[in-house]
Amino acid sequence: MFEPSIAPDRAAGPAGELLLTDWYQLTMLQAYLAEGLTDIAVFEFFVRRLPAQRQFLLAAGLEQVLDYLEHLRLDDAEWAALQRSGRFDGAFLAALRGLRFAGDVDAMPEGTVFFAHEPILRVTAPLPQAQLVETRIINLLQFQTLVASKAARVRLAAPGRELVDFGLRRAHGAEAGLLGARASYLAGFDATSAVPAGLRWGIPLAGTMAHSYVQVHDSENAAFDAYARACPQAATLLIDTFDTEAAARRLVPLVHRLAADGIVVRAVRIDSGNLGELARRVRAILDQGGLQQVRIFASGSLDEHSVAGLVAGAAPIDGFGVGTRLCTSDDQPWLDCAYKLQAYGGRPKRKRSEGKATWPGAKQVYRSLDAAGQLAGDVLTTLQDPCPGRPLLQPVMRAGRRLMPSPDLEALRAHAAMELQRLPPAWRDLQPVARDPVRIAPALQRLCREVDALADAQPAPVSPPPPAPEQLQNE
Amino acid sequence: MFEPSIAPDRAAGPAGELLLTDWYQLTMLQAYLAEGLTDIAVFEFFVRRLPAQRQFLLAAGLEQVLDYLEHLRLDDAEWAALQRSGRFDGAFLAALRGLRFAGDVDAMPEGTVFFAHEPILRVTAPLPQAQLVETRIINLLQFQTLVASKAARVRLAAPGRELVDFGLRRAHGAEAGLLGARASYLAGFDATSAVPAGLRWGIPLAGTMAHSYVQVHDSENAAFDAYARACPQAATLLIDTFDTEAAARRLVPLVHRLAADGIVVRAVRIDSGNLGELARRVRAILDQGGLQQVRIFASGSLDEHSVAGLVAGAAPIDGFGVGTRLCTSDDQPWLDCAYKLQAYGGRPKRKRSEGKATWPGAKQVYRSLDAAGQLAGDVLTTLQDPCPGRPLLQPVMRAGRRLMPSPDLEALRAHAAMELQRLPPAWRDLQPVARDPVRIAPALQRLCREVDALADAQPAPVSPPPPAPEQLQNE
Repeated sequence: MFEPSIAPDRAAGPAGELLLTDWYQLTMLQAYLAEGLTDIAVFEFFVRRLPAQRQFLLAAGLEQVLDYLEHLRLDDAEWAALQRSGRFDGAFLAALRGLRFAGDVDAMPEGTVFFAHEPILRVTAPLPQAQLVETRIINLLQFQTLVASKAARVRLAAPGRELVDFGLRRAHGAEAGLLGARASYLAGFDATSAVPAGLRWGIPLAGTMAHSYVQVHDSENAAFDAYARACPQAATLLIDTFDTEAAARRLVPLVHRLAADGIVVRAVRIDSGNLGELARRVRAILDQGGLQQVRIFASGSLDEHSVAGLVAGAAPIDGFGVGTRLCTSDDQPWLDCAYKLQAYGGRPKRKRSEGKATWPGAKQVYRSLDAAGQLAGDVLTTLQDPCPGRPLLQPVMRAGRRLMPSPDLEALRAHAAMELQRLPPAWRDLQPVARDPVRIAPALQRLCREVDALADAQPAPVSPPPPAPEQLQNE
Repeated sequence: MFEPSIAPDRAAGPAGELLLTDWYQLTMLQAYLAEGLTDIAVFEFFVRRLPAQRQFLLAAGLEQVLDYLEHLRLDDAEWAALQRSGRFDGAFLAALRGLRFAGDVDAMPEGTVFFAHEPILRVTAPLPQAQLVETRIINLLQFQTLVASKAARVRLAAPGRELVDFGLRRAHGAEAGLLGARASYLAGFDATSAVPAGLRWGIPLAGTMAHSYVQVHDSENAAFDAYARACPQAATLLIDTFDTEAAARRLVPLVHRLAADGIVVRAVRIDSGNLGELARRVRAILDQGGLQQVRIFASGSLDEHSVAGLVAGAAPIDGFGVGTRLCTSDDQPWLDCAYKLQAYGGRPKRKRSEGKATWPGAKQVYRSLDAAGQLAGDVLTTLQDPCPGRPLLQPVMRAGRRLMPSPDLEALRAHAAMELQRLPPAWRDLQPVARDPVRIAPALQRLCREVDALADAQPAPVSPPPPAPEQLQNE
């Protein structure tokens, strides 16, 4: 089942983006071109099922997808490597070299709340273009949506608290660290520790100090004094290297001495032990020492559940550093998502594999709000079936060109905050309790039956339609 | 607790590797330089605790760490962005611009089996250099080790079966997809679908076809015929788009017709449903049709447990495509790992935070094999305490230069295979049953007590030493 390998080419260095794809995309592309299958195809990216621990998802990653599509081309080194492989003929390589993405994209803005079955991105393009980009589109949308959705839960768990992304080191590679910082900021985090994410997207950068910094000094107070002088208005001092309470007690006179020199210690960080209990004791020590203005920052294997527990227990913690469990979305590190063919040459298509059946055709999602401005429900329907409510997929690219400049990350973040505000209380709960709000419109159900009837004209047995949401079954 | 943000700089494009770090590394660096804390520091990367579902880990990622250290420098765009931030003084920026990694690295070869508390990499360098690289070193070593360790479990679960990495689309970003392909090949996978991983490292590339390919044709057989002609010796045909058994039955006469034209169909792929049962039925259909040579390839949310179940049930499956759950290491998407200061200026150091205490000083691991050549046990000790067995950490970089060229990935893969062979049966089991094989040498225990005694001369209360392995407690 293996096809011949392409020869290694260390000299080529990092491959460009066009080849950042699966091998079968290239072999299928070659076949499509040989067969002349270059009609317009419609593909949609959607999530088949929400994870058990998520009540909603927050769309993210569109900006990187559009950037990828705009710059899609085969660079010289990639072309040479493919040629040396001997696997592809000259006509195909020439076609690949000339390939640009010239299609249309419609999508939900980043930061939009969405649910299972709802496409968040639709690509309409000649089949070879629309197919080739499948791998990277899933790669970009799944990961950022995963982290944004997790970060939104942490944000809902800690209203009013400062939240800092500490994920870079435990993220799965560099790109995950940076895109994870972006996704968590989009979802409502306040800052990140990842320097390149600050440089690229203007995300506020934050940090404290490491245990190693404390350890290379002769004493904790020597370390605190030196660090406060190096960061004279902004130091957060890490007080758990040896004994947290003892460090807090010794810190009090030092902070007063530093203040006399005009140096402000902003906060202390606790990174281990029982965070709630230690925060209470440290708060008491600081308050008794007249340091009410010194804040307490906590970190260490936190997620939405532990943060919610600390907040519910009224722990005097002003901010949280959340890293590993956020950037890996550790309770659910992947989404059951797909980028699937919905139509080809004007004919709607759907997949009927067991457990993986899809709704056919290019689709739109309409969202209704109730009188209080809260999310009331969504309708999933065909493009030709306008429904009440706001259509969530908007045109963002036509003929390979963006229709507007990249939106500012701050604007997307404000949109995400508004989306979370519009969630009815049941949907904000960390434990899934809400009902699926997506209704399948009659027009889409009709189309589904028509597509199946047409397919069954072929000698292939009927398979059941995708499971309909509960509401629909009751209608 | 936030420090001022650096201004965004879209023009700078992707940041270079020197700034691929946490913000606190830069603020600590500035403080270290201001204080003259530039003595030699020793840092080690290790895993504190094995995940509950892992009996061993497989070291991976060293090659990328050495590459990073060799090329560490601040590029012009990064320098300009930092300067514009106004956050750092000119002396610091000049120092950062001149910074190169000129230290030593000792490490276990990639593909080596290791356990909790054992360092797999040691950095010995002036403190500012050794500190700055913490973030990226953890980022590179954790992820590849995670995937290599997961892939090793799949390899052990499916002896003799072909294993293909399908992870790129669900990996956390592009780098994770490519490094995940590398790590799984290192651990014994046979191929990957990720094109750039084939180009960079010579990993065999494999692929089948997508459901969309089937759907754009008028019938499944039209799609199979066209694809087989496009890949005349190597086609694997995806037969589950509509009805798997019906597709297999219709395929039989087509494969014979293609054979008459000299076109070989190598395999069929099943991607949904009850894989074991469908494989049995498809095998029977193919065999009855005289197609004993057509192999069966299975995919769809597989991991080591489902693969082991299919193998134990004697499912007639010749190869497995494993993607999502491999490249996200989904049952355990992170390691409790650290890159910790072990010595500074010749003085051993250790952290005593609750639940995060470490063994002090630069360390070595000695591995003993039994008479049958199987792993008998490891000893963790100080550098000055030679023990029986093979020392696992080897010099790989001195004064910032590699001591030898990059090892071939094939050689590392052979080493990993040998390491897995040397595991006694209890350690190969997917369910953790084996005892921790790491013994802490008396010399290291003595050093730990000495370091604590010295630290306690300061007014900091005693905290317990790290939990000793079970064997030791019984001695």
